[in-house]
Amino acid sequence: MSDAPDVAARRYNAITVMSDLGTADGYVGVLHSIMRQLAPGVEIVDLTHDIPACDIQAGALVLARSVQYLCPGVIIGAVDPGVGSGQRPVALEVAGGAAVLVGPDNGVLASAVGMISGADRAFVLDNTDFHIGGGAATFATRDIFAPVAAHLCAGATLEDVGTEIDPNSLLPGLVPLNNVDVGEDGTPFVEAEVLWVDRFGNVQLNVDPDDIAGWPEAVQLDASGVPRTLVRVATFSQLQTSQIGLLVDSDGLLTVAMYARSAAEELSLHRGDGIRISPLEDDTPRTSVSLGPTRRTGGE
Amino acid sequence: MSDAPDVAARRYNAITVMSDLGTADGYVGVLHSIMRQLAPGVEIVDLTHDIPACDIQAGALVLARSVQYLCPGVIIGAVDPGVGSGQRPVALEVAGGAAVLVGPDNGVLASAVGMISGADRAFVLDNTDFHIGGGAATFATRDIFAPVAAHLCAGATLEDVGTEIDPNSLLPGLVPLNNVDVGEDGTPFVEAEVLWVDRFGNVQLNVDPDDIAGWPEAVQLDASGVPRTLVRVATFSQLQTSQIGLLVDSDGLLTVAMYARSAAEELSLHRGDGIRISPLEDDTPRTSVSLGPTRRTGGE
Amino acid sequence: MSDAPDVAARRYNAITVMSDLGTADGYVGVLHSIMRQLAPGVEIVDLTHDIPACDIQAGALVLARSVQYLCPGVIIGAVDPGVGSGQRPVALEVAGGAAVLVGPDNGVLASAVGMISGADRAFVLDNTDFHIGGGAATFATRDIFAPVAAHLCAGATLEDVGTEIDPNSLLPGLVPLNNVDVGEDGTPFVEAEVLWVDRFGNVQLNVDPDDIAGWPEAVQLDASGVPRTLVRVATFSQLQTSQIGLLVDSDGLLTVAMYARSAAEELSLHRGDGIRISPLEDDTPRTSVSLGPTRRTGGE
Repeated sequence: MSDAPDVAARRYNAITVMSDLGTADGYVGVLHSIMRQLAPGVEIVDLTHDIPACDIQAGALVLARSVQYLCPGVIIGAVDPGVGSGQRPVALEVAGGAAVLVGPDNGVLASAVGMISGADRAFVLDNTDFHIGGGAATFATRDIFAPVAAHLCAGATLEDVGTEIDPNSLLPGLVPLNNVDVGEDGTPFVEAEVLWVDRFGNVQLNVDPDDIAGWPEAVQLDASGVPRTLVRVATFSQLQTSQIGLLVDSDGLLTVAMYARSAAEELSLHRGDGIRISPLEDDTPRTSVSLGPTRRTGGE
Repeated sequence: MSDAPDVAARRYNAITVMSDLGTADGYVGVLHSIMRQLAPGVEIVDLTHDIPACDIQAGALVLARSVQYLCPGVIIGAVDPGVGSGQRPVALEVAGGAAVLVGPDNGVLASAVGMISGADRAFVLDNTDFHIGGGAATFATRDIFAPVAAHLCAGATLEDVGTEIDPNSLLPGLVPLNNVDVGEDGTPFVEAEVLWVDRFGNVQLNVDPDDIAGWPEAVQLDASGVPRTLVRVATFSQLQTSQIGLLVDSDGLLTVAMYARSAAEELSLHRGDGIRISPLEDDTPRTSVSLGPTRRTGGE
Repeated sequence: MSDAPDVAARRYNAITVMSDLGTADGYVGVLHSIMRQLAPGVEIVDLTHDIPACDIQAGALVLARSVQYLCPGVIIGAVDPGVGSGQRPVALEVAGGAAVLVGPDNGVLASAVGMISGADRAFVLDNTDFHIGGGAATFATRDIFAPVAAHLCAGATLEDVGTEIDPNSLLPGLVPLNNVDVGEDGTPFVEAEVLWVDRFGNVQLNVDPDDIAGWPEAVQLDASGVPRTLVRVATFSQLQTSQIGLLVDSDGLLTVAMYARSAAEELSLHRGDGIRISPLEDDTPRTSVSLGPTRRTGGE
């Protein structure tokens, strides 16, 4: 263990935490308690602890779309079903040292790191002097990620807590790519995936507004049910009660939404579902199409 | 944007936040991150983020009954289904400047402001220098309310962030009023509404203890089902297992409750339901009555 | 009320809070607001507020297994269905004064106190100068526990806030004991109880690894359904998709678990259920057994 740190030497003074631990079991309170004792005065921000249990891709998405807003400092991304399997606990330095992401090397950090131009340096957290407990195999967030994050705020360096590895050896994130194409009849379409359904039932798609540049106000949505018409609007309140809208959301992505109602419920859409959108010149939906699986590929 | 603020000049050092954003999507963590960076060292208190989605009146109620306990400083009340509709983002100075409430001008702040004798001054938040993003139309809590609240803590004045408007131009809150009356047979009664059902299933009514002054220990409750007998008690534990009680709750309002059980579930009562109570001299419920809608009126 | 405290005289600078209040009703935000105003600068850690409503034993368990990690200071344990019944609000000094546990004398604090070698001193919180409100009968967490905890951080002594009582007069916790025995055929077994089911569906038992020392890799589980085979592993990821494991969890107790799936759902197990485990030499479950109730006893 390093000597008592000089507070003035601290590089980081905030820890942001995202996990799938939930808030009911007391785990998160224990994380806070550990970090506050190891790094007195550190600021702790809970991004969310309600990532669906063991859902690495959901965690990666939430971290990626939030990372531009987070405090400089240490960021823990802990969705870790493979704990104890030999999967490496890592710390990734990004943005010229402005932040360090700490978590398992299972892809949960990859998309966020990709959003901020990649990891400058990567370390495997193999110095057990900075862990707590006797190498417990089942709860790395408590025993490795939280104490290492706190030590990094309390003066420890990345070299203190781990061994440098090649950032290219890190597991990449799985990002669902959409398919922008033109049908046999010359009509453009986008095959996409539901990235997220939020508390309001807004259905976020992996579609950029540029992907539908030039499309008319009415858009056809094909999913599991009958085709539906979406109206392109700028904000929720432009929609009539029964209308379904397509708007650019606060992450800059296309989202299917209703006004003060859940579009996900109305359309029976869930995270990961495949959908297809196409321009609708005359507001009358065409016959439904059969949907193949969404393409997926590695990389950030 | 104002110059870097003099910390000593800070008027406010705490931001309390209430919203319907939930905690699962990462939105709240982003709010905290934004505020901590714009106002380093500020204390942030989450009142709750679990207001039912888009339920302005629920938000208004929670804010009103909590406001007397909140830290002096900035208070964000963000239940905002009409974002982007032209509805004004506002800041309301109250209590001689002890606090500023920030949120949409849709009534969500009105009841709390009314509890503390009204707004001294009101400002529409039209200075986009203090907003973030390029005028995103869909997430004012992130892009306007949070950064403005933080800037107010970091030294900005109300004049910096907005333009003064007439407090009388603000949208009033909708407060459900009860109806205290006497029936044809001379029996007094109160027609009221379920204001809130809490985690314990306690059913808070919009009835003041004074409204039933002089009533006997037994009270008849008429709601959707068969009439039930309520026993007036001072605290939950005075009730037998199957008894239903009527007590003065920690907000000073009458609440229908059971001991370590959910009265709301037992009685199938939900927020907004109309009920009727009347004194029961001999402990035997009378025939049920038909319930008209509860009267509502404007004002705080 | 004591004079304005000398900050340098503060003994405690952190308050950890556990309750069954939930986070939806605004109660927790009010607690934070009260404590921050009475003890400016105090650090507040929420252990959890999602203890099942009125479930004293659940609260006692979460507090007991977390207490070794908590910050020195004041710890509020508030699961309090009997508020107003004459049950005493208490403060218990532990670990040579390193911490004070505050809550109702109903057993919710008892297991945690037992984990750290008992209460050095106990006080009943009878000095209403340190309470808020006019002796409200229904919400001691807001009106007694939170303000007393804050005053203890702001310089008040235990003698200021209460009257010393005999720690032996405190209500003990109810701890479910397991039954380690040997059947008529010479096969050892353990009859135990489900202590907790966490967000991941991991089923924590009141069984110590020593209780099954020398048992083989395969273990038979008898619960309400057909007998099932458990595989003893060190960590979740050693399990095949359909296997059910038995491992030592992060609290040091035996837990029935699956890999990235809910064992509780697979086995229809809930908190408080009785189960029986026995060694399985040949991997073939024997005929099911009938389960009697789990023994319970007082004491910590």
